[in-house]
Amino acid sequence: MKKAVLLFSGGLDSSTVLAIAKQQGYACYTLSFNYEQKHSVELEAARQLAISMGALRHEIVSLEIGQLLSSSLTSAHLNVPSHGEEKGIPSTYVPARNTVFLSLALAWAESLGAHDIFIGVNAVDYSGYPDCRPSYMEAFEKMATLATKEGVEGKGTFKIHAPLLHLTKKEIILLGTSLGVDYGKTISCYRADGEGKACGTCDSCYYRKEGFLAANIPDPTPYQRLAETADLD
Amino acid sequence: MKKAVLLFSGGLDSSTVLAIAKQQGYACYTLSFNYEQKHSVELEAARQLAISMGALRHEIVSLEIGQLLSSSLTSAHLNVPSHGEEKGIPSTYVPARNTVFLSLALAWAESLGAHDIFIGVNAVDYSGYPDCRPSYMEAFEKMATLATKEGVEGKGTFKIHAPLLHLTKKEIILLGTSLGVDYGKTISCYRADGEGKACGTCDSCYYRKEGFLAANIPDPTPYQRLAETADLD
Repeated sequence: MKKAVLLFSGGLDSSTVLAIAKQQGYACYTLSFNYEQKHSVELEAARQLAISMGALRHEIVSLEIGQLLSSSLTSAHLNVPSHGEEKGIPSTYVPARNTVFLSLALAWAESLGAHDIFIGVNAVDYSGYPDCRPSYMEAFEKMATLATKEGVEGKGTFKIHAPLLHLTKKEIILLGTSLGVDYGKTISCYRADGEGKACGTCDSCYYRKEGFLAANIPDPTPYQRLAETADLD
Repeated sequence: MKKAVLLFSGGLDSSTVLAIAKQQGYACYTLSFNYEQKHSVELEAARQLAISMGALRHEIVSLEIGQLLSSSLTSAHLNVPSHGEEKGIPSTYVPARNTVFLSLALAWAESLGAHDIFIGVNAVDYSGYPDCRPSYMEAFEKMATLATKEGVEGKGTFKIHAPLLHLTKKEIILLGTSLGVDYGKTISCYRADGEGKACGTCDSCYYRKEGFLAANIPDPTPYQRLAETADLD
């Protein structure tokens, strides 16, 4: 069985990616990061979900970098905005986050003897985040092979799999549902509360909600009380 | 004053790079990593050295990844070899280390509004470590610009400076000495003891020693007692 390392936040996208990698026959090694994100409640949920979905091993790597980063996801001085409050690249953008995460996945992959890395970036994020673009993925892949012992010794090149890259949220949800993903157990919200309940109004909640609506699938997300009320308005 | 982020272990190479960046007029932000390396005694020495050499700010980022990596620098199951004990890429190679470090430097640089990143890789390491090759540096630079908000918004591209890339250890030492680097305060050894004293026999010590000899400059490295005795044989 070929090994793969997966970036796994336990959100809607990365859970779908895990189901895809499993279906493709990979032995899955999942990786989450505690980078001092405000919504770190996702970490324990991610661990439970990864194991219940059949990951062979799940690791949470602590990365004390949050306070060095200019991002509303980590900085105590910036609030996470609601959807529509910002124009252009959102303040939730974490500088070079996918590069940092993919680099650590690469380090683990090389140590495990894996040549395949999965990441759940997709077209919707692409409109906002620079490190979700196809050209970026290709550049990372090229760099990764030059960076490693495996590449030098010609044992193999590294492949970055981004199976959701060209899918909409609707298509992702339909695909994941067909593969049996239990989206009620995934946390996508940037402002999730201590129980992992979603705010319903941040960018991440917005695209997720729209996705379920477009897919005509009941949204199984546990929302915070305020968000439920807001929905009724 | 233009800002630059520097990877700074406090060893001979990165200390020389700090002196070079200062001379080029950069406001220097230095970055060290605790990646569970056995020779973590270098961290406190690096902090003191960076500040005394005029870094504006020094950060040590903790990265709990050591036990996931197949490297004799981190793994409890592998001993750091002496020079000459291994053929090919040494076991001290840390999978994707420069990629991980440069990625985190990139994240900090973007947060600071810096577009320049310095790294002390050089020709001697190049013979052993894949991520010290010029082709790798170019690939990282290309990826970095695609990865970031700065790149998308056209505010600027990122430049990876590797001023030692084509220098021998002798040339590095001569250059650093002319810039006033106090090499007696730098720690390069992979097996440094609790006081920061060098073993004298690992790869890192070997190339450093040879460098001082070739440069005809007295070696100011504090060696462990055993290493001193070995020298006398």
